[in-house]
Amino acid sequence: MNTKTRRLGGWGFESETFEPSPQLIQWLTENVGPPGPALGDTDLKIPKIRPQTLPSLPGEVCTEDRDRLFHARGQGLIDIIRVRSGTVSALPDAVVRPSDADEVIGILDACKGSGVRIVPWGGGTSVTGGVNILSGDQPIISLDLERMSGLIDFDSISGLAVFGPGTTGPQVESALAEHGFTLGHFPQSWELATVGGWAATRSSGQESLGYGRIEDLVAGMDVVAPAGRWRLPALPGSAAGPDLRHLVMGSEGRLGIITEATLRTRQKPEQTAVHACLVPDLERGLDGIRALMWSGLPLCMLRLSDPPETEVAMTIGLGASRFASLAQRYLRFRGIKDQACLILVGTSGSELEVADALEGARNILRSRRAVSLGRGPGRHWQRDRFRHPYLREALMDRGWATDTLETAVPWSRAALCRTEVRRALETALEDEGERTAVLCHVSHPYIDGTSLYFTFFFRNTSDPEATIKRWARLKRAASDALVRSEATITHHHGVGVWHAPWLRNEAGELGMKILGDAALRMDPERMLNPHVLLDPTDRLME
Amino acid sequence: MNTKTRRLGGWGFESETFEPSPQLIQWLTENVGPPGPALGDTDLKIPKIRPQTLPSLPGEVCTEDRDRLFHARGQGLIDIIRVRSGTVSALPDAVVRPSDADEVIGILDACKGSGVRIVPWGGGTSVTGGVNILSGDQPIISLDLERMSGLIDFDSISGLAVFGPGTTGPQVESALAEHGFTLGHFPQSWELATVGGWAATRSSGQESLGYGRIEDLVAGMDVVAPAGRWRLPALPGSAAGPDLRHLVMGSEGRLGIITEATLRTRQKPEQTAVHACLVPDLERGLDGIRALMWSGLPLCMLRLSDPPETEVAMTIGLGASRFASLAQRYLRFRGIKDQACLILVGTSGSELEVADALEGARNILRSRRAVSLGRGPGRHWQRDRFRHPYLREALMDRGWATDTLETAVPWSRAALCRTEVRRALETALEDEGERTAVLCHVSHPYIDGTSLYFTFFFRNTSDPEATIKRWARLKRAASDALVRSEATITHHHGVGVWHAPWLRNEAGELGMKILGDAALRMDPERMLNPHVLLDPTDRLME
Repeated sequence: MNTKTRRLGGWGFESETFEPSPQLIQWLTENVGPPGPALGDTDLKIPKIRPQTLPSLPGEVCTEDRDRLFHARGQGLIDIIRVRSGTVSALPDAVVRPSDADEVIGILDACKGSGVRIVPWGGGTSVTGGVNILSGDQPIISLDLERMSGLIDFDSISGLAVFGPGTTGPQVESALAEHGFTLGHFPQSWELATVGGWAATRSSGQESLGYGRIEDLVAGMDVVAPAGRWRLPALPGSAAGPDLRHLVMGSEGRLGIITEATLRTRQKPEQTAVHACLVPDLERGLDGIRALMWSGLPLCMLRLSDPPETEVAMTIGLGASRFASLAQRYLRFRGIKDQACLILVGTSGSELEVADALEGARNILRSRRAVSLGRGPGRHWQRDRFRHPYLREALMDRGWATDTLETAVPWSRAALCRTEVRRALETALEDEGERTAVLCHVSHPYIDGTSLYFTFFFRNTSDPEATIKRWARLKRAASDALVRSEATITHHHGVGVWHAPWLRNEAGELGMKILGDAALRMDPERMLNPHVLLDPTDRLME
Repeated sequence: MNTKTRRLGGWGFESETFEPSPQLIQWLTENVGPPGPALGDTDLKIPKIRPQTLPSLPGEVCTEDRDRLFHARGQGLIDIIRVRSGTVSALPDAVVRPSDADEVIGILDACKGSGVRIVPWGGGTSVTGGVNILSGDQPIISLDLERMSGLIDFDSISGLAVFGPGTTGPQVESALAEHGFTLGHFPQSWELATVGGWAATRSSGQESLGYGRIEDLVAGMDVVAPAGRWRLPALPGSAAGPDLRHLVMGSEGRLGIITEATLRTRQKPEQTAVHACLVPDLERGLDGIRALMWSGLPLCMLRLSDPPETEVAMTIGLGASRFASLAQRYLRFRGIKDQACLILVGTSGSELEVADALEGARNILRSRRAVSLGRGPGRHWQRDRFRHPYLREALMDRGWATDTLETAVPWSRAALCRTEVRRALETALEDEGERTAVLCHVSHPYIDGTSLYFTFFFRNTSDPEATIKRWARLKRAASDALVRSEATITHHHGVGVWHAPWLRNEAGELGMKILGDAALRMDPERMLNPHVLLDPTDRLME
């Protein structure tokens, strides 16, 4: 269990913040406009919503107000706005914490026939509405799996580790470190998110290039659903029919509760190093990343920031550090200030392996006119890698709203997709006379394409509904642009409720029907997280 | 199209054979017993089975006898026995060859409501009954996709290649070679099998360690089913719900016909080299392979033969070559003749990369007391890699039967699983006073476990039914041993009809129901390959 207290109406822990630099404030003012009205969390009110009557349930049942509000919402921008502005329309009627799979079964059994909806909760870090408590006539509970955490079994010969679904990233790594192993799964939500949540939402980590996405790391699962218990055995490879693990992964609670996951782990590498460089423009950047992917070099992390993000990272995010001045010198020298792109290359292993891989990478990037920035910016990035999300609330405290969205697309359409999404975001609020600033980076390249991760900024209004409306317009415009670009609606944030209307574009009508059949088979009464994935209602304002 | 003629009642092309060495004959006589009655293909008779009346169908419709018999059976041992002995109980009422997806739709539409069963046919190399024409009251056609072959589109920026489902391995590689690319998918059936068949059966290749299994290589698919057309877009990575590609891959035609596949390809490496060595025993061999997997070295192929297979490979398969004498010297030197294990290590890349990887591998294996045999045995293996299956028919010509089966299991259970399966095979025919010889190798290691591939030999009888009965007893014994070992029923051969009774052990009851629902959704009339995967009937004698 975490001893630090989770923040209400904001990311992470109460003890942590990440304040914007004066330079970032200036950049936002120039690129978005002066701040709108601040929306802080100092006079946060808990809405009084009387819990509906529930059947008697096994597990720890909590109806305390703060706990209910904390479990009412995930970590999407509008979740934060709603909690801070006291406009959350529904709370769970209880937060229920089972201690094992039998108690989960007991809870499902007790809820059968009573119309109770059950929303599984891991770390509560969904940014797609995936754990949100939506209002409705039926009672609803948040099923918090935090008591089902920890390492259950470790097979050191195979490197297979069985974890409870509520195990957080730090818990995973510290349990494995005792054996000299690592999972290597480091999403930005690593400190908060859980094994079950990762598997249920097809999570990717910052080093998934080296360790694989969670789909590659989950060897087997135990799943509990109203229809019964389902064990998917841990096997290294199989041709025994369709791979049903891939149906559970990404099901976001809709098909069942993951009560155990067997994960593929590795011996902890001696060291991880991150090399930084700048290339003159995005075209060379994308080409360089693709060349690195095709080279077969044993890298664990690759990032490419587009010119606006590079500007923010180099001259603002890194503040007045020596990297900023290095960058300035480089930019002046090249005469291409506006177009420079930052690349980070990470690799793990022995000192020799790390040196060899970085040398190989530098050779490839040199032919794209890269100028090395050494290991400094990488250390900076590694230090702050889990802190960046805190910036959102610090900006909201000052009157700016910021959110992110992500996709993946083949290399041949990557540049165009970025342009389309940027344009969609930049123009979405034009008729209100509002500007949107957009940053983009590559963080998960593949052999055939890449993720694109967008961060966008706009101004708060004095009315939370109007701010949320701005956000909804931005999301719709960007999501439609993704569909036009034949890009996926989400690379690693998941579908949740907010992306659900766009899912059928890539799953297809028959795919949606098959998923619906599977959900009906596992959960005939539609108890489990009934509004994610399959419900095509646009809930961006809820 | 292949210009060489495919053999009837045997593997591959009529022009190819692979004759056993006198040493192998001697080894079989010693380990299995003197040969039983030969079953050759010289007086092969085509059963006279009158075709049932079919609706009028688009595509090329052939009712010629040889074509019908050729499409009646795949390449399992009993398929060969049945064709050679003239005991095939059913033929397709026609072989239908559509030229595009529209014609596939036309065929499905024309068959609706008429009860016609449709068995998709790629290269016809299934060794699990996956393309077999089973007798029944309803008419049945073999849907041969050979006219839907070739490279349809190539995106050289992303390395994405769109192929027709009927494209064979050589066709894939020669089309890609024009662009300097390779798919790198080399199953033993490479010369015959097809893109659609690979995807439908979750195929693995001999270099899947480097290039990935077909699941990793298939980015997208177009599928046609009675319920309609289903496009699964080619995306490099996505968290947009469950990965439905993984439901189609492994569906073995049950959910639809793959009419197009988009594959991830790579730039062709400069060279591929295979290093060979011997380790003193299986324990060190397994440990060495696992250490190589955990090292992160960029290898594309790893094989480990158990002591019996090593004996056959070194002193028999390689005949009187210089490797055999080298091996003899090594064995004498170590005094561990019976327990030595052959390891092959393959890697691809530039000359320097190949040298580096092999050096790294040698270092790891040296600490397992490996003695290098250089690159000779690897060249030998590369030359014969697609010829080995021809040996089966050459042995049947002489009175011995041989078949293979494969599985995968975590490292911690690998040695025990091998022992269990060996024991099951060796004792299955004991009550008939018959012996079974068993060889085993690792060919597809993973980070958390490995495949195990078994080759077994037994004696023909004069009655084909009795020979098939021996085979069925061996299969049942081995399959039950796999279930006891919590190993998968198939690592890369697929489920077909023969493994179907064992599938529910790993898919689970709920998994089987979900698959059944998906099949019903795509194919409400159960037209498509209705006996594979989901039909639990034991058909080992059919």
